Amino acid sequence: MPADNPVIVIGAGVSGLAAARECLKRGQEVIVLEARDRVGGRTFTQQGDQYGYVDIGGAYVGATQNYLLRTLQELNLADKLYRIYVENDFVFLSNGKRYLFPAEDFPHFWNPFAEMDVNNLFRTMDDMGKEIPSEDPWNAPHAEEWDKMTFKEFIDQTCWTKAAREFAEFFVQINVTSEAYESSLLWFLWYVKQCGGVKRIVSVKGGGQEMKMKGGMQQLSEKMSKSLEDRVRLGHPVTSVEQTGEGVVVRCVNGESFHGSHVILAMAPPMQMKIHFSPSLGALRNQLNQRMPMGSVWKLQVYYKTPFWRDMGYSGSVLTTPSEEYSPVTYTVDDTKPDGKYPSIIGFMPGDRARKLLALTPQQRCDMLKETYNRAFKTTKANDVVHYIEHNWMEEEYTGGCYTCMMPPGLLTTFRDTLRKPVGRVHFAGTETAWEWSGYLNGAIMAGERAAKEILHNLGRIDKATRDAPEPENHLIPIEDFSNTFYETYLPSVPAFLKIAGVATVAGAMLYVHTRESGPCIFLNLLRFGKFGQ
Amino acid sequence: MPADNPVIVIGAGVSGLAAARECLKRGQEVIVLEARDRVGGRTFTQQGDQYGYVDIGGAYVGATQNYLLRTLQELNLADKLYRIYVENDFVFLSNGKRYLFPAEDFPHFWNPFAEMDVNNLFRTMDDMGKEIPSEDPWNAPHAEEWDKMTFKEFIDQTCWTKAAREFAEFFVQINVTSEAYESSLLWFLWYVKQCGGVKRIVSVKGGGQEMKMKGGMQQLSEKMSKSLEDRVRLGHPVTSVEQTGEGVVVRCVNGESFHGSHVILAMAPPMQMKIHFSPSLGALRNQLNQRMPMGSVWKLQVYYKTPFWRDMGYSGSVLTTPSEEYSPVTYTVDDTKPDGKYPSIIGFMPGDRARKLLALTPQQRCDMLKETYNRAFKTTKANDVVHYIEHNWMEEEYTGGCYTCMMPPGLLTTFRDTLRKPVGRVHFAGTETAWEWSGYLNGAIMAGERAAKEILHNLGRIDKATRDAPEPENHLIPIEDFSNTFYETYLPSVPAFLKIAGVATVAGAMLYVHTRESGPCIFLNLLRFGKFGQ
Repeated sequence: MPADNPVIVIGAGVSGLAAARECLKRGQEVIVLEARDRVGGRTFTQQGDQYGYVDIGGAYVGATQNYLLRTLQELNLADKLYRIYVENDFVFLSNGKRYLFPAEDFPHFWNPFAEMDVNNLFRTMDDMGKEIPSEDPWNAPHAEEWDKMTFKEFIDQTCWTKAAREFAEFFVQINVTSEAYESSLLWFLWYVKQCGGVKRIVSVKGGGQEMKMKGGMQQLSEKMSKSLEDRVRLGHPVTSVEQTGEGVVVRCVNGESFHGSHVILAMAPPMQMKIHFSPSLGALRNQLNQRMPMGSVWKLQVYYKTPFWRDMGYSGSVLTTPSEEYSPVTYTVDDTKPDGKYPSIIGFMPGDRARKLLALTPQQRCDMLKETYNRAFKTTKANDVVHYIEHNWMEEEYTGGCYTCMMPPGLLTTFRDTLRKPVGRVHFAGTETAWEWSGYLNGAIMAGERAAKEILHNLGRIDKATRDAPEPENHLIPIEDFSNTFYETYLPSVPAFLKIAGVATVAGAMLYVHTRESGPCIFLNLLRFGKFGQ
Repeated sequence: MPADNPVIVIGAGVSGLAAARECLKRGQEVIVLEARDRVGGRTFTQQGDQYGYVDIGGAYVGATQNYLLRTLQELNLADKLYRIYVENDFVFLSNGKRYLFPAEDFPHFWNPFAEMDVNNLFRTMDDMGKEIPSEDPWNAPHAEEWDKMTFKEFIDQTCWTKAAREFAEFFVQINVTSEAYESSLLWFLWYVKQCGGVKRIVSVKGGGQEMKMKGGMQQLSEKMSKSLEDRVRLGHPVTSVEQTGEGVVVRCVNGESFHGSHVILAMAPPMQMKIHFSPSLGALRNQLNQRMPMGSVWKLQVYYKTPFWRDMGYSGSVLTTPSEEYSPVTYTVDDTKPDGKYPSIIGFMPGDRARKLLALTPQQRCDMLKETYNRAFKTTKANDVVHYIEHNWMEEEYTGGCYTCMMPPGLLTTFRDTLRKPVGRVHFAGTETAWEWSGYLNGAIMAGERAAKEILHNLGRIDKATRDAPEPENHLIPIEDFSNTFYETYLPSVPAFLKIAGVATVAGAMLYVHTRESGPCIFLNLLRFGKFGQ
């Protein structure tokens, strides 16, 4: 078998293209086989007269996403980044109430118990996250215990107020497009941790949603693909991968076959099930691929003549918890173009909402959006929709959901490193296999380059140090300090407060039942410093 | 398109063959495409000089399995059934202790709290099961609540003693080859219920494991296949299913394609992922197929010169709970041939054990078996193994696990009837779609015939009444009464007993911590009637 037998990358999403680029950079020939008629995978920029362009898939870029930022610089795409509009107030709708808060903060509650409880919830999650190693979370001291619990069990054990329980459920939905009752506690804590913690993962300003790209994020894949020239073959769904003693044979739906030295599967684990493997990938990998389902999410986007919410003092960001049943969306962000064209709000419809609202018509979902924005902004202007777009990632044959795979209880500690452990000549990329912003574009690039480097090292093209070199910190987007404020650090939890106040357990039990808010607490609001990082 | 355009059945396991037979019986032509080079799917009878034959897959037959029993009669296989050896004592190993009990009973505990707790656990499960409709469990009154919990949460909430918790975990492992922490409470309660309840599902005598077939259970598939003549094509892994306006086109790895009127997918949901669908099966089906993983199990079988355990007063059935870490198996059954040849014990290694003991060598697993049987039978004779066989269903490309798929929290109530709802011309069989002994051979036949009848009705070959006719009760195996005894019905639960006894909650909490057994309680043993159904 000749030394320049290509590496065959299956999947021309961001991860697969990053893998192919890494190979080519080191002189290793590649072929990239893509099932769809486009590159980009879970990133997809749609074009249209009514909106110019829109990213209906992965789009956001934030500080500390070192692999992504460096790649954007390499491809001369960095100067296309622009900051999301976050002036004015965010609106938080929960338990029939409406709260306003600035981009730099979290919602605060007039009920002091809710305030303590929410603060304690997120502080506890970050503290637990510190125990979990990003690269091998199954080795965390409490890995077994936490992995046998759902995140819902943790909520039930940790939260004393309905406000905190609802906020916790919101937080799971928006970050991993799954529900608290489906997700392993260990996995979700790990996921938040490897994105930099509670504040960084969820924030726009300073967080994972700080910037987008003029012209759309698919440019990333298109530029990568262009540099690979005719090595990328669209419309080539792969049906089988055969490992021979000497290499691999990959066959496609159209009957074409390709011979290579190694295969990189640059796709989410459930999508690997589309391929018939000979020999089988083995017991653990077979079972892993059946156990990491894609999350459930739609993107719903409405366009208006003017960004009326800005003039009214709102950022366009609306957060809603599960009790707000009129709302199809959990989280929204202003999506007006940076030059002010095509005023728009983009909304995420994850988890149970994504599945339960499937049966409605697009018009019905759009009507629900209007009601949500009217309530959030106390207006009727949200009715004046000029265009509506929705995209349901779950119905796509070669994605089956978004943003990323979720891990149910037990998966991490049972299957451990199976997720990225090569099986013979088959290596694994895809954002799920990363451990710095896994689930994001950054993770996709990290994973693709790692899988390529494994093979390049095996082929003797790079040394071990090059294979294992960490990615340098990138300061294209300034890295804000997201450590806890004095207020956040020292605000007691509800049980600690009750203990301090000498109130008996009975009162606590009563509070647990009676979870409604009960009026202002001047003391706490004096204590509050109100901004992260101060 | 001609009227006799065939129905294409994908999968020549028991369900697919039953579907094909049903079609042919009504004059509807069929083609059955099977990926492997054999029929039978999850039933597989292996031949060998050292053991004659052995069923390393599905094998057991029990009362109330009406679809299976009728089919065995139709195929003249009923007279090959024989009863499993259940004379003498069963051995239950748990928490370092050893209990003996007869085939007609469950283990009893000297610690009265353990005895009350185990009894209450299973009584509660059966009571909850009565609320759950077999055909549409998502409509149970507490469906939402129970489906958002794992079975482990239920154990933690229900059980006061370690004995009961361990027994509950054992019960999940052996019945569904998954762990309590992975399984939805609603789903597991449903699973037990649709097999006839706690006693029927787990028992040998009168239960799901009462009989096996001389010559092996693959004869069932072979006889069905023979009646289908050349309509069954082995070695035809399917890569794509295209639905056109007029029919379906099915393509195989080998490039062959088949045109038909409808498709029946006679395989577990995760295996359906191997097929590229055009158009996609839709959002819910896509996500469902990612969310129902196969259970994890091996069968480990040792052969001896003599059935030494019989002479020592044991049946050969050994039950072990998770704390018995030396044991690879959770449940064992005498597997000596009915004529006394090839003395053997077959053991099931499910759930965590199946995954954690993967890394060992066959010799190491066999050594663990020897230790287990030596401890169970208080002997050293278990060392004298003359032959050892093991089969790991997880590593098979076209099964990926056994016995059946498990449902994680939320699946049943979120996806509801998606599991067997046709998508255009694609219909769904496979034991997972049944609701009478789903997960068993009986469910496979029920599901195959149902899917076929859906199509036959759509094609105008049968009327609605024929399509929906229930299966008559079959008395080939007498149906024992498994209702609770007086003792089982009226033995109080631990909290009820504590209340009766006027013992304060403090003592209960202490008991919860101090879970070891504490000595005989003559009172309870006098109360006990000792046999089911008396």
